[in-house]
This record gives sequence, structure tokens and C-alpha cells, in this order.
Amino acid sequence: MRGYFQKDDYVLLVYDDRRKWMRQITDKPFHCNYGIINLEELIDKPYGYKIQTNTGKYLLAVYPTLMDWFDFFEHSSQIIYTKDAAMIPLLLDAKPGDIVYEAGTGSGALTAILSRSVGTNGRVITHEIREHAQKTAIKNLKKLGINNVEFILQDVATKGFKPGTADSIFLDLGDLEDVIPYTCQILKQGGKIVLFIPTFQQLEKSYKLLASNNYRGIYALELIERGIQLKQGAFRPATRMIGHTGFLMHARYYPFKD
Amino acid sequence: MRGYFQKDDYVLLVYDDRRKWMRQITDKPFHCNYGIINLEELIDKPYGYKIQTNTGKYLLAVYPTLMDWFDFFEHSSQIIYTKDAAMIPLLLDAKPGDIVYEAGTGSGALTAILSRSVGTNGRVITHEIREHAQKTAIKNLKKLGINNVEFILQDVATKGFKPGTADSIFLDLGDLEDVIPYTCQILKQGGKIVLFIPTFQQLEKSYKLLASNNYRGIYALELIERGIQLKQGAFRPATRMIGHTGFLMHARYYPFKD
Amino acid sequence: MRGYFQKDDYVLLVYDDRRKWMRQITDKPFHCNYGIINLEELIDKPYGYKIQTNTGKYLLAVYPTLMDWFDFFEHSSQIIYTKDAAMIPLLLDAKPGDIVYEAGTGSGALTAILSRSVGTNGRVITHEIREHAQKTAIKNLKKLGINNVEFILQDVATKGFKPGTADSIFLDLGDLEDVIPYTCQILKQGGKIVLFIPTFQQLEKSYKLLASNNYRGIYALELIERGIQLKQGAFRPATRMIGHTGFLMHARYYPFKD
Amino acid sequence: MRGYFQKDDYVLLVYDDRRKWMRQITDKPFHCNYGIINLEELIDKPYGYKIQTNTGKYLLAVYPTLMDWFDFFEHSSQIIYTKDAAMIPLLLDAKPGDIVYEAGTGSGALTAILSRSVGTNGRVITHEIREHAQKTAIKNLKKLGINNVEFILQDVATKGFKPGTADSIFLDLGDLEDVIPYTCQILKQGGKIVLFIPTFQQLEKSYKLLASNNYRGIYALELIERGIQLKQGAFRPATRMIGHTGFLMHARYYPFKD
Repeated sequence: MRGYFQKDDYVLLVYDDRRKWMRQITDKPFHCNYGIINLEELIDKPYGYKIQTNTGKYLLAVYPTLMDWFDFFEHSSQIIYTKDAAMIPLLLDAKPGDIVYEAGTGSGALTAILSRSVGTNGRVITHEIREHAQKTAIKNLKKLGINNVEFILQDVATKGFKPGTADSIFLDLGDLEDVIPYTCQILKQGGKIVLFIPTFQQLEKSYKLLASNNYRGIYALELIERGIQLKQGAFRPATRMIGHTGFLMHARYYPFKD
Repeated sequence: MRGYFQKDDYVLLVYDDRRKWMRQITDKPFHCNYGIINLEELIDKPYGYKIQTNTGKYLLAVYPTLMDWFDFFEHSSQIIYTKDAAMIPLLLDAKPGDIVYEAGTGSGALTAILSRSVGTNGRVITHEIREHAQKTAIKNLKKLGINNVEFILQDVATKGFKPGTADSIFLDLGDLEDVIPYTCQILKQGGKIVLFIPTFQQLEKSYKLLASNNYRGIYALELIERGIQLKQGAFRPATRMIGHTGFLMHARYYPFKD
Repeated sequence: MRGYFQKDDYVLLVYDDRRKWMRQITDKPFHCNYGIINLEELIDKPYGYKIQTNTGKYLLAVYPTLMDWFDFFEHSSQIIYTKDAAMIPLLLDAKPGDIVYEAGTGSGALTAILSRSVGTNGRVITHEIREHAQKTAIKNLKKLGINNVEFILQDVATKGFKPGTADSIFLDLGDLEDVIPYTCQILKQGGKIVLFIPTFQQLEKSYKLLASNNYRGIYALELIERGIQLKQGAFRPATRMIGHTGFLMHARYYPFKD
Repeated sequence: MRGYFQKDDYVLLVYDDRRKWMRQITDKPFHCNYGIINLEELIDKPYGYKIQTNTGKYLLAVYPTLMDWFDFFEHSSQIIYTKDAAMIPLLLDAKPGDIVYEAGTGSGALTAILSRSVGTNGRVITHEIREHAQKTAIKNLKKLGINNVEFILQDVATKGFKPGTADSIFLDLGDLEDVIPYTCQILKQGGKIVLFIPTFQQLEKSYKLLASNNYRGIYALELIERGIQLKQGAFRPATRMIGHTGFLMHARYYPFKD
């Protein structure tokens, strides 16, 4: 983090917790209900600067985090929840220098997290079947300046993955039956796989598929996130919450011969 | 990941899900109930190799993941749960090149995760008050080959943090009253803070401390992890689970003047 | 349960899971988008009868359960959730013949459950400060034919409870400070109290109030209800759920002298 | 509740939260680590009386609640958890005067709760295949003075239920395939059924069985109970909890002809 805005940076303009805008700093002025801002005034200003509109209102100019970005991603489908997205790199043991395969790309939110995990010397190779979704993900990740991701437009259920060697693989796909055998062509001995599984029925199918394809140490977990309401004198769990997103199933690939 | 074992590598020897050993590959033989293994036989063998003991039993020789390591860390205190440890880098927006401050170090599990997040160009500066705990953490992380962590033996409640500039700060401390003001000396404008908070009472105290020290956008959440039992024909959530570890509170530092 | 409808019975008319109506069987015809029904046709028909409208559509004529009734109660305030309402009689150890005190009455949903628990020989004495709420509750419970409930219009924080002797007491009130001492005037030695407590701060206040008023064996719990989506081939927890209603705190009254 | 102990009453003797004993008041003295008590001293003493042992220690003499009893039931199998047991009468719409069928009896804990729900004019008819379990349940419920329960020693999977007419049925059985058709012989039109279902696979099987046997309005839910630790200044959810007991599936029987 540089600490100060520069031209072409993205900035999150915050009026309050509900009214936020993500904009690039160019000569194009920013218009909202609270007035007009010349965004170039932000150049050389520190992150978190309070900028005044022409009507005298203030907006906070925040350097966006990855989680801020997720709120502004274009969606081709339901975005993965952060509770799940956060756990996946750890389950994949993704680390600087790793090659991580992903399918599908979706809106690219998890792709961005994996991109961070593998760092500049690593690589994320992400597959998507829908051209429109891929374009959206490319657009989303370009704004973040991510450049260690390879986008493959391919149906992994019929054509498998881009040839290569994966340290780990993450799959968020409806039907895994034809895909799991293909993972064995690219995953290193001892490599990790993580599946995102929404339903009870898929849990059993996925387990059997992994077990019959030389995966071992299979386990599954579910993460539940509970927001806490921090209202003065009345702290409590939030009244409404997301009840379920999916299960995460983990396994390692051990195709040895006895 | 290299794909093959070499001398001095650590290897996880697996008999089954409960019987596992972490050993370094040296000329020292490995003894267990299932026989003796000359560990140097593993050199140049692929990760996941099945190695035979002198009594004819097989052990799986696995390249350890970070989560495997956590099971073998020496503990100076309760280790942070992976569900929480996974979420913290995302809440901190920790990324390659960042400077992340931590207190206390504990057994070093979260330190290891943060070390991965900031990559080779980043740095984790971790503070611990108990000399014994710090030694344990140093020992734990040394085995992982981590070299972007700085260990500071210091009471942050009385002496504050090592001088410097932090992109983000994580605190897992009993009493934050004297510590929070010190965070303002090192955290960048717009920097992120995350607190690990076990009790209801501390939630309120922490909220007030952050709010009165120029922190904004304060929110809190709790993660609950539910293991899924994958017993044939009887998949179900596990009968026993961890009911509570702590809350995660997030805020950003905006010490602007109007 | 009689098994057959009679005049003046209430009937739940069901088109599907979302379109339901509660009506009394009188000579007044029932009109809906699916046509008109002469409700007196239901007399002597079995519960669950499929009745045809004048336009040829069918509605199911169901004998309403207590939980069906809750969906059609007039509300003066948020109705208690069934997960909590179900647990309260057990925590109160409410049984046939008991005298149970309640405050406030609210919409009368819990009152109806307690009325069932104490049976024809028992009595529920329920207190409410808002006249409008009390009228609503009386109206709601009258339709269910409940006649072992006494409705008291009184502010228990300033005037305490109706004189008498309680086997157990349930309180769902915002501020308990002035009320708890009054409970000691009516509760039997060894009697049970249950409090519904929405926030973390109130947990601590309530605990102290109970402890300083000769209550013992204090404990608290929270119930979380997770709906399960039974969609063909895609069973899973429901995507959205209620994240929090409140805690239930239980104690017993032991005002002995050593 | 009478308020005072009498001869032959059961009393719960409490030293602290962990050391409790359930005894009948007879001329047989009570011995424990804290000394000896002549239980007949309790006659005419109020519930909650502090009784002194011959060594000068005090025990609290508590009139046992149903939940106290559950802790002292002899077990023939895992006892149903109170969170589930509390919800079942509401899902069954069990009320004074109802006839409720149950299988299996188990240790009789739910039987006792249902016995309370149907009151003196109602009846619980409970079926068990294991003679030993039935004897245990009879013994357990006899101590509570319950007399509206009929115990049937019969395998409902091969012989069905005792002939009669049920307002509602509760089943906690491993295999429902042969049992569900038998429920249609005894359940009233519009009657309620509730199933206790431990696994994901059984959820789907049970749903299909109910749907193909004229059950409608099928839904399922799970209750999770979280204990709250009330340690001074450190209130928080308990560290350990029960992760899963089972799902509750509800349906109503509508065997109409179009």
C-alpha cells in the first residue's frame, strides 16, 4: 500500500455504510446525490481523505480492500461468500509459488484470493465454460491489477483442464462426475483438492467420486458466519443471516501402487 | 512444491487418520509400533510414497501442509482455530508486499498464515510478552522455512509496538485498553485492524476503544465450523463440535481532521 | 380432535404452501382468487376434506394446529419464535395443574402454549401493560377456545404481579430491574423462572439481578433453528434463516436461610 | 406442586452443579462423601430446604423437574435431547385429550413429555421392540407417577401399531420403510406425524416415503442448542457443544380422494 492516491487508482467513496461508490481517478467528475467531486483532487491525498463535494458534503475516499471490491464486482453468478473463500486457500495449502487450478471462474472473487495466495511467482489457472462469465471475471480482476491468472474458456467436463501440473485444484461445479477423472491428469502426487458442494446429495456423490479416483484423507466441513449487531447497549447476533451456502470437501491425491 | 523428498525435508508419516508422525529426513531411523523405517529411503521418492517398515507395514509419506504443521506445533497457549485464522488475512486485506503487525505471537500459527499472505516482499512483525512462548513460535516457524517474520519480545500494553508503519494489525490480547492507543502510532491512514475477542463483555469494551481512537467502519462477526461425518450411508454433521472460539472485530483507521 | 368439522369451527383453507386462509364455518361464503365456497358444506366433512370452489378449483380444509394459528394471530408486537416457545414450558417444568405467571402477554402465542401445558386444572396468569396488546391477545386466544388464562392489565415494573402463588414465571420484558424483586413475592420456594433475553448486555444484567434475589442454578442457552430445503435431488439447509431471536435464562428460587 | 416434601417423594439432593443425587424419601439413610442424611427429616420441609449432614455439610433438597429426572433416567439407548423433545409436542400439535402414538419408547424421556402434553384425559401409546428397553422406560416413568401411558412390546416394522386412532404419531426408528404404511392404518385424516432423522440420506428416504403414503405439507428443520457460559465478566457461548442430534421432519396425513 502506497498510502496516497495517484491518477488511475480506484477509490471507494463512502458517505455512510450503505452509500458507497467505486470510481477510478480520472478527469471525469463524480456525481451523486450529495454533489459533484473532481476526483483528480484526490491525487497525492492520503488514503482515507475526506473530500468535499460542491454542495459542502463530505465523502471519505478509501483505498479499496479485496472485500470492498467484491461488493462492486460484476456478477455472472452468485459470488462465493467470504467465509468460504477465506478457508479455501488454507485447505488447498496454497502458498507463494504454487500452481492452483480452478473451475469455474465465476465472477473471479475466489480467483482474486487465490491470486494473492500464490503471489507473483505462482499462477492461478482458472477454467470457465460460459464466455460471458469469463469476460466479466477478466474485467473484474483487471481493475485489481492482477496479472498471475490465466483464463481458460473450456468445458472441463468434456475437455478436462489445460495441460500442466497443479499443486492444488478447486472446483465449484454442478456436476463432478466427468470432471474428477480429469483432475488426476494434472494434480501432483500428494496434491490437494477442494470441492464446493451445496447439497446433501452431492456430498455423497462427491465422496464416492473422490474415493474411487485415488483421493484420500477425505473430509468435509461447513462454515457458518454470524454477523454481530453492534448497536449501542444492545449488542447481539444479527436478526437475519445466511443459513447455508455450501460444504467444503477436502482430499489429497495419492495414486500410488502398492 | 518440488514433488519429491530431499534430505532434511520434513515428512508426515501416516498410518491412519489418528496415527501420524512428523519427522525430518535424516540418518536417524524412525521407530513406531508398526516397525522401523530408514527415512533416507524417502530421498528422491515422490510425495505420497508408501514406505514399508521392517515388519512389513506401510506408512504414507506425505509432504506436510500448513494445517498438518499446526497439529505438530509446540503450544505455548491455545492455538487459533483454522476457521478464524483463515478469515483474518482477508479481513486485514493482507497481500503480497504488506507489513502486518501482530500481538501476541502465541504458537505462531496465525503468524505462519500471515507470512504466506504477505509473501517474500512483505513482512510480519509479531510481538509477544512471554519469552517462552516466543521461543516456541520461533522454533515452530523455523521448521517451515519461514523467513519474513520479525519476532519482538515486548509488552505492547506498556511499551507499544516496534516503530514502523503497518498496513494492518491483528491483536489477540486479553486487555486492549492500553494497546489500542499504541496502534495509532504505527497504522497507516486507512489501515485495517482485526481483534480476536472471546467474550460478550469484551465486544462492547473493544468497540468503544476503537470508536474513541479514530477507528471507523467497525463490525464484528463469528465463524462457526461444523465438521461433517462422512460415514458410509450415514452422512451427517459430527456429533460434537467446538461451540465457540471468539468473535472477529474489524475496523479501519481514519484519523483525519475535518 | 373430533375428526369432522362442525358449525362455528375454524378451518384452514389451503391452496398451496403460500396461499392459506383461516375462516370460521358460518353461512358467510368464502371468496378468493380461486372462486367462492359455501363454508357450511364442510359441516360433517372429515378434516382434510378437499372442497371445490364454484370455478372448479380445490382447496384443502384443514383443522388448524396451534402453529397454524400463530400464522393468523393478530400481532401487537413480534411473536415469539416456536423454537423458543417450545422450550419454555420444559424449562418452567410446566405441567398439568400448575399456576404459571407470564409478563408480558404480547400476542398471546406463548400464553396459548402454556395454557396447553397446565391443562384444564391449571392456570396461566398473564400480565400486559398495553391495553391494545391485551385486547389482541384476548381476541386471539378466544378463537382457540382457551379458558384457563387470566389476563391482567398491569405494569409489573411498578405494581408487581397479581397476588397469588406461582409454580413458575416467564418474563419477556425490556427492563427487569424493578420486576425481579416482585417475582419473589409470588414464586414458590423451588419455583422456576425463565427470562427471554435478546442482547448480550441484558444477559449480564439479568444474571446479576437473579443472583442477588435468591435465584440459584442460573444458566442460559440459545436455540437456533435451521430450516431444511427439501427440493428434489437438492436437499440442503435453507439459504436464509433467522440469525437470532434471544437467549433463554433459567433459574430456581431458593430463599432459604442458613 | 405441593411445596413441601412428603414420605415416598423423590428429592434431588444438590451439593453443587456437578454433585447431585436423586433419592426417595424413606427410612433408608443417604450416604455420600459429605456425610449421612436421615431423609425422613425432609418430611414437611419446603422444597429447596438446606439439609445438614452428620459432618456439618449442607445439601439443597430440590423437588425434581422433568429435566432433572432425565439426568437420572436409566438409559437403554441415547436419550433424546431436550431441544428436540421440547419441539416435538408443538409439531405434533399434542394437546390435552389427544391420543399420541410413539415408536420406539427408548428410555421414555419423550414419552414423559408427551404424557404431560396430552394430560389426564389423553393417552400416549408407545411401542418398543426391545424388552429390556421397555422395562427401563416403565421403571423410569413409574417414578414420575405417570399413568396415562400404554407400553406396547411390538416390532412396528413387521406388526404395525396397536389398533386404534391416533391424533398424531412420533417415530424415532432406524428404518422407516416398512413402518410408514402402517401409520396410515391408525392416523386420523389431517393427523400429524413427526420423524426424528439423524442422517442426510435418511432425510431423502423419509421424504419419499411420506410423499408416497398420502402425507402432505412435509417440511424439516434442525434445532441447535448453544449453551452460554455465565462466568463473571466473561460471558460467552460454551466452548464445547453438541454439533448434531438429528432433523425433525413434519407432515400431515391427507388420504382424500379427488
